Amino acid sequence: MNPEYKIEAKDLVIRTLGKPTIPSPITRFLKPGVPYPFVKDEERVVFDDKLKEVVGRFMIDREVPSFECAGPREKIFFTPSKTNCAIVTCGGLCPGLNDVIRSLVLECHHRYGMNKIYGIPYGYQGFIPEYGHKVIELTPESVANIHLFGGTLLASSRGQQPTDQIVKWLLDHDVQVLFVIGGDGTLRGAMDISEEVRRQGCTISVIGIPKTIDNDIMFMDKSFGFETAFAEAVKTIACAHTEALGAPNGIGLVKLMGRHSGFIACYAALAMSDVNFVLIPEVPFALDGEEGFLPVLERRLKARRHAVVVVAEGAGQDLVTGELGTDASGNAKLKDIGLWLKSKVEDYFKVRDMEVNLKYLDPSYQIRSVPASPQDSVFCMRLAQNAVHAAMSGKTEMLVGRWHGNFVHLPIMLTKLGRRRVNPLGDLWLSVLESTGQPVSFK
Amino acid sequence: MNPEYKIEAKDLVIRTLGKPTIPSPITRFLKPGVPYPFVKDEERVVFDDKLKEVVGRFMIDREVPSFECAGPREKIFFTPSKTNCAIVTCGGLCPGLNDVIRSLVLECHHRYGMNKIYGIPYGYQGFIPEYGHKVIELTPESVANIHLFGGTLLASSRGQQPTDQIVKWLLDHDVQVLFVIGGDGTLRGAMDISEEVRRQGCTISVIGIPKTIDNDIMFMDKSFGFETAFAEAVKTIACAHTEALGAPNGIGLVKLMGRHSGFIACYAALAMSDVNFVLIPEVPFALDGEEGFLPVLERRLKARRHAVVVVAEGAGQDLVTGELGTDASGNAKLKDIGLWLKSKVEDYFKVRDMEVNLKYLDPSYQIRSVPASPQDSVFCMRLAQNAVHAAMSGKTEMLVGRWHGNFVHLPIMLTKLGRRRVNPLGDLWLSVLESTGQPVSFK
Amino acid sequence: MNPEYKIEAKDLVIRTLGKPTIPSPITRFLKPGVPYPFVKDEERVVFDDKLKEVVGRFMIDREVPSFECAGPREKIFFTPSKTNCAIVTCGGLCPGLNDVIRSLVLECHHRYGMNKIYGIPYGYQGFIPEYGHKVIELTPESVANIHLFGGTLLASSRGQQPTDQIVKWLLDHDVQVLFVIGGDGTLRGAMDISEEVRRQGCTISVIGIPKTIDNDIMFMDKSFGFETAFAEAVKTIACAHTEALGAPNGIGLVKLMGRHSGFIACYAALAMSDVNFVLIPEVPFALDGEEGFLPVLERRLKARRHAVVVVAEGAGQDLVTGELGTDASGNAKLKDIGLWLKSKVEDYFKVRDMEVNLKYLDPSYQIRSVPASPQDSVFCMRLAQNAVHAAMSGKTEMLVGRWHGNFVHLPIMLTKLGRRRVNPLGDLWLSVLESTGQPVSFK
Amino acid sequence: MNPEYKIEAKDLVIRTLGKPTIPSPITRFLKPGVPYPFVKDEERVVFDDKLKEVVGRFMIDREVPSFECAGPREKIFFTPSKTNCAIVTCGGLCPGLNDVIRSLVLECHHRYGMNKIYGIPYGYQGFIPEYGHKVIELTPESVANIHLFGGTLLASSRGQQPTDQIVKWLLDHDVQVLFVIGGDGTLRGAMDISEEVRRQGCTISVIGIPKTIDNDIMFMDKSFGFETAFAEAVKTIACAHTEALGAPNGIGLVKLMGRHSGFIACYAALAMSDVNFVLIPEVPFALDGEEGFLPVLERRLKARRHAVVVVAEGAGQDLVTGELGTDASGNAKLKDIGLWLKSKVEDYFKVRDMEVNLKYLDPSYQIRSVPASPQDSVFCMRLAQNAVHAAMSGKTEMLVGRWHGNFVHLPIMLTKLGRRRVNPLGDLWLSVLESTGQPVSFK
Repeated sequence: MNPEYKIEAKDLVIRTLGKPTIPSPITRFLKPGVPYPFVKDEERVVFDDKLKEVVGRFMIDREVPSFECAGPREKIFFTPSKTNCAIVTCGGLCPGLNDVIRSLVLECHHRYGMNKIYGIPYGYQGFIPEYGHKVIELTPESVANIHLFGGTLLASSRGQQPTDQIVKWLLDHDVQVLFVIGGDGTLRGAMDISEEVRRQGCTISVIGIPKTIDNDIMFMDKSFGFETAFAEAVKTIACAHTEALGAPNGIGLVKLMGRHSGFIACYAALAMSDVNFVLIPEVPFALDGEEGFLPVLERRLKARRHAVVVVAEGAGQDLVTGELGTDASGNAKLKDIGLWLKSKVEDYFKVRDMEVNLKYLDPSYQIRSVPASPQDSVFCMRLAQNAVHAAMSGKTEMLVGRWHGNFVHLPIMLTKLGRRRVNPLGDLWLSVLESTGQPVSFK
Repeated sequence: MNPEYKIEAKDLVIRTLGKPTIPSPITRFLKPGVPYPFVKDEERVVFDDKLKEVVGRFMIDREVPSFECAGPREKIFFTPSKTNCAIVTCGGLCPGLNDVIRSLVLECHHRYGMNKIYGIPYGYQGFIPEYGHKVIELTPESVANIHLFGGTLLASSRGQQPTDQIVKWLLDHDVQVLFVIGGDGTLRGAMDISEEVRRQGCTISVIGIPKTIDNDIMFMDKSFGFETAFAEAVKTIACAHTEALGAPNGIGLVKLMGRHSGFIACYAALAMSDVNFVLIPEVPFALDGEEGFLPVLERRLKARRHAVVVVAEGAGQDLVTGELGTDASGNAKLKDIGLWLKSKVEDYFKVRDMEVNLKYLDPSYQIRSVPASPQDSVFCMRLAQNAVHAAMSGKTEMLVGRWHGNFVHLPIMLTKLGRRRVNPLGDLWLSVLESTGQPVSFK
Repeated sequence: MNPEYKIEAKDLVIRTLGKPTIPSPITRFLKPGVPYPFVKDEERVVFDDKLKEVVGRFMIDREVPSFECAGPREKIFFTPSKTNCAIVTCGGLCPGLNDVIRSLVLECHHRYGMNKIYGIPYGYQGFIPEYGHKVIELTPESVANIHLFGGTLLASSRGQQPTDQIVKWLLDHDVQVLFVIGGDGTLRGAMDISEEVRRQGCTISVIGIPKTIDNDIMFMDKSFGFETAFAEAVKTIACAHTEALGAPNGIGLVKLMGRHSGFIACYAALAMSDVNFVLIPEVPFALDGEEGFLPVLERRLKARRHAVVVVAEGAGQDLVTGELGTDASGNAKLKDIGLWLKSKVEDYFKVRDMEVNLKYLDPSYQIRSVPASPQDSVFCMRLAQNAVHAAMSGKTEMLVGRWHGNFVHLPIMLTKLGRRRVNPLGDLWLSVLESTGQPVSFK
Repeated sequence: MNPEYKIEAKDLVIRTLGKPTIPSPITRFLKPGVPYPFVKDEERVVFDDKLKEVVGRFMIDREVPSFECAGPREKIFFTPSKTNCAIVTCGGLCPGLNDVIRSLVLECHHRYGMNKIYGIPYGYQGFIPEYGHKVIELTPESVANIHLFGGTLLASSRGQQPTDQIVKWLLDHDVQVLFVIGGDGTLRGAMDISEEVRRQGCTISVIGIPKTIDNDIMFMDKSFGFETAFAEAVKTIACAHTEALGAPNGIGLVKLMGRHSGFIACYAALAMSDVNFVLIPEVPFALDGEEGFLPVLERRLKARRHAVVVVAEGAGQDLVTGELGTDASGNAKLKDIGLWLKSKVEDYFKVRDMEVNLKYLDPSYQIRSVPASPQDSVFCMRLAQNAVHAAMSGKTEMLVGRWHGNFVHLPIMLTKLGRRRVNPLGDLWLSVLESTGQPVSFK
């Protein structure tokens, strides 16, 4: 699970806005006299906790890369009663967004007693007057039940907006803390905002809560919403299996999310073991040829009369022809592997005059719009609480994440190092190969 | 709810294979001495139970159309221990198929003690040797848990097969009772089989259990699987609503089943009242013009920033151009109204340079492949038990149905009279208009 | 399903407050010129739609008992813009309460344009100042999402309150229509209120929507929430079955609701066929003796090593000793058959030195507090819409119900005739006997 | 999350049966020429990955405690085709048991090609002839769908059985590998078996898969079934909240599992934030006195009119009087805190003549008998695969576990060190205090 990246200790240093000097108000939640379990900046989690060479013996005299532990600090940087914050959600929907918003609001309000909490509507668009969206003020009452619903109370949008206008809005509204919930592009935008703020000599903490339903963020155990998502995908796979069993040479073809990383496809296939073929971006495949996907599928149908195929949306992009540009978030538009594969399969068997009944299922919107599972709800709450702790202590340009079970701080810049991907020689993919019984490669 | 068809008493007479003379064995389930509550052929349910003209006073001296009540008869026609039956499921999947199969098997085996129960695989194909499908023998053990799964244990196929070959198979295997579970086309095929059997001077009871997820069978309170189906559809509509709320001018467009009748669309929209527009086959609509669908949608978006649209697959077929022929079941292939509407909406707003975010959801396979809800499970069990009672008593060329809460027998020929459709002036559609707030017509 | 009660035509006459003279405003939901499908008082549904004696021929020259059809009337009695109404929910929770409240509000507000809609909190207590509860005004906004939650927005309480104080509140607040949602006792209270109103020479329409999770109201196809309830019960039975299978001589004992009628127990057992024994109030049983429940259970365990028992809360009350009085609603307090049976079973096998592992499950609160299923949601909506139609047309002292698939009006007084109960010689109980394989009687 | 126990490197050494010399057969799942990613014994995960003193710098010249990594080894100890194994499940039900059984079978059969896989019925009882249980042989077919059901295919029992008889059975059936799935007591029994085997000079690998729905096993990130369990508990809490809201001074009192550790109660309360009070074994409380639970509850009711209380079964054991001995597993029988608290609350308010409506919910059997969630399914599969790898490589007297995201081997003896418990000064409990708003202590 540990990525092979060359990380150095200096890459993991967190930027701060200044020395925290204000006693944290959160001790009022404990009895007087009981020492509050504050976390110190010196508490860190090592990046690499594996011993490979010297068994059971660390002999290290250089600096070891490690993450700063998240948690409440004894001294904070901002005066709570004078602090305003803003929350914005960007990009596609993901289970847990409302949990994060809700917990941010509850933590800011109840635990720190912040002044105002602005909810920015429709992503970065909400900062730009010309769109005419209406910023709302968030209170514990207005977020009380939102975690029971999917989506985001604030709504979202894709794409960047002019950094200077965003910064102007923040300064006009005397905002000291900006919480940004979004993916790669969104977080790059957050860095731009922070840099512009610094250029103007102002002091705003910019804290990201990374959102990727695909679970492809590096240096994190998992991303919120991922577990909910693959659990939902399992339901669709069960339907595809039922359909495949229900007709002569039935094929259930399910397209799942996963632009660059096949984690949802892999975990869903492991949890619902009726899947016969999994195709992911990390493992190229050929359609034709003796060991190509189509002849292998044909042999499967002849042997068992049905098949279930799960394909991640980013799989086989080298095979699909035609260019589609980028979407508003700057993501390369993917060619639709699902519909393409559907037509390839149907053509293949039509030529061979073999009746097949292919049912194509594309549940993406049904997966990403459900409420978070209880596990993800708790995870979102913890992420949000730690985001608030970090912001109040004056840290900035950072993400809250989890590493080896510990909540930690990560510099936003780390996300530039790439994405987490399924290792074709790793344990996960080998489990998938074993569970599906599919060949190691189609070629 | 009462259809306006001109039904006469003679249309509802059930054909019998001969006089039942054998005492029913099912009394062994009661204590000796307790009279078993057998049903007599003379017990009937009136077709029209409404009084419209003479208030509170029936003055009728002619024969009133009425349905024969279903239920166990005191004397039966077939000797159970020498009776073999066959079960076949045809057409598309529908929740409850496994419940029906299971209850047929349990009733034939446990209650009547039949000899053999054949399960015919892959619909009518299973009777035809050249397909190479393998007929299985069904036992209480082999069907014990199948109701917990969607689909059909027997698998299914579309389309007719040569009647003479089917009859040959039945006679070769000494089958006295054929249970056919399927829709219009399948039931027409069942009539052909029965007529061929009669032509050959043989005695086989052909009993249909009508299957239509669209709930469009006439003279029935409801069809099995329908309630499960619209309950599933509700989940997708909730997702579409979440997606619509989540993006600027978000549109959630959901295509639901309903080739000729919009019942699923209507009931799902009533149960999940976030739907703003319902389009069904029974109510034509125009896209353009002042009161056309697209301008009305535009006004909705400008007022509320999001919209949820539910379209039944058979809606607006007059608008979509191009011919597509018929499928293997002989159903006219529908032009895909969902994708067509999606592109029309997107084009409309592109021309007007208005950002909309349309999310298209087509959950049909996910809806029809789930297990039956508990309500449908009980309904399927009751249908199947009554189908067995009817068969054993020597009735044939009939369906089991439910009329005004009573299980009844219907001649298969009734299905030729047409389909049940949503009445555009009836209570159901008015409730939908009211719930959605959509205009009475788009034109 | 038709009860055997001696009903006469005059028993089914609905009381009216006066002649409706005001044109209904609801035609604005249709295009001008399209005739609105109003329902006339003369439209009726016959009480008994069965033909038993004269086959296919009605020869009746006397008045036939029939129900008045529900639905919108062309002329109404109250001037909508001057009409205020109050809604109160009483007794125990039942799935669908929020659906009924919500649909009442939407119908009163959107379709008729009523003036004010009062929500009375905590049942009849809410009318009485000394309790200090706060009456709220209900609007479409305040009820928008409540159907997604179980329970009742208004909260509830058991028991009557002084009729004169209730009437005073209604008159003080100029209420013309009172909607009462509750069971037997509550509806008796509603009659008292109406009679007091009449005694004072005032004009208030009192409309009941009968609530009984047990489905034991006579003259109704089903009560709202019942289908949701038995579907929930099925989940618990599955757990009990799993527990029973999981340990040596495992016994899963599930107590379900059903004070006087075993409908939930019966339907749940039919839907989840792993139940081996069903005990209901309508069928007495003995514990001991050769064919008593305990020896039969012992034989079952010796043969199959596990057993699942479902017992309705009102079963075996003759066996349990000790008096417990009545609760605040005036219902006789039941002795807890579940715990009693648990101890009897454990004692029996302890004496015989036979290891059994009994797991006792009492899911009542988990069943009754869930949101309504989509089917029940639609049913609740229809009930509520028809309740509003009836009230506005000046009818009173009536319930909305459904008979043979039609929505109808019933005099409240009918509820005094008794409860619907499972017929021990009817189709439902025979299906249960067959499905469980239990003896016809334990004695 | 890191426990404070004093662990030394030597405590984490895994016992082996001998030197593995046989090439692993599992490379056949990869293409020839591709190096299989085997795990070496030298790969280890450090026990403590936190840096607390020297920031970012490890300066360690002593042996660091670390866990051996799990995974397939290049050389194995047993010849697969001659190896027989046995699987036994003991103690109470827990979601995921069937997933573990199924994955053990698939891994032994498909990946290693073992000879026979025995399924031992009803826990350790299944080894003892006098119980008359029937051992079954497990195959991929017999376990194909079992993960869709709760419970355990093999059934279970509590308590030890004579070690010599168990060993005799294993030797008589030529078993080389014993997989034991169970809790503390069961694993102590497994050690006894292994020691007896060694005493007799025989060679059997004994591998434990620790089962504790309470998540109270030390040195493991989480135990299987725990996440499923608290997600189920959330549903019951939602019901309790609905009930509490539905009646005057409504109290929803939910008893959850947690004999010694309150993890389920804490996580469920975090995920469903309508909980007002959480009582766990780790935090003592007083009922009476100014800040006792009862007066605080009274103030809550007076302020908000309802309350939701979650109590772990092991909470407040010092308050409940009376001794109950131990159950067959040797666990001290707990006094029922739920019923005790119910009566204390009711008495308290009765004395004060204050109407409260307490609804008591005890969902334990409904929680532990459900199928595993997809997340737990994948976790169970991974645990089982690693258990098989460990066994085949000749390791013994060990558990498979997960530490900081890595699958690892743990000596069974570690379980003697105690249980994992909620830290009353840790992050989890502070989050609970904050989410509920309850006082730091009741006294």
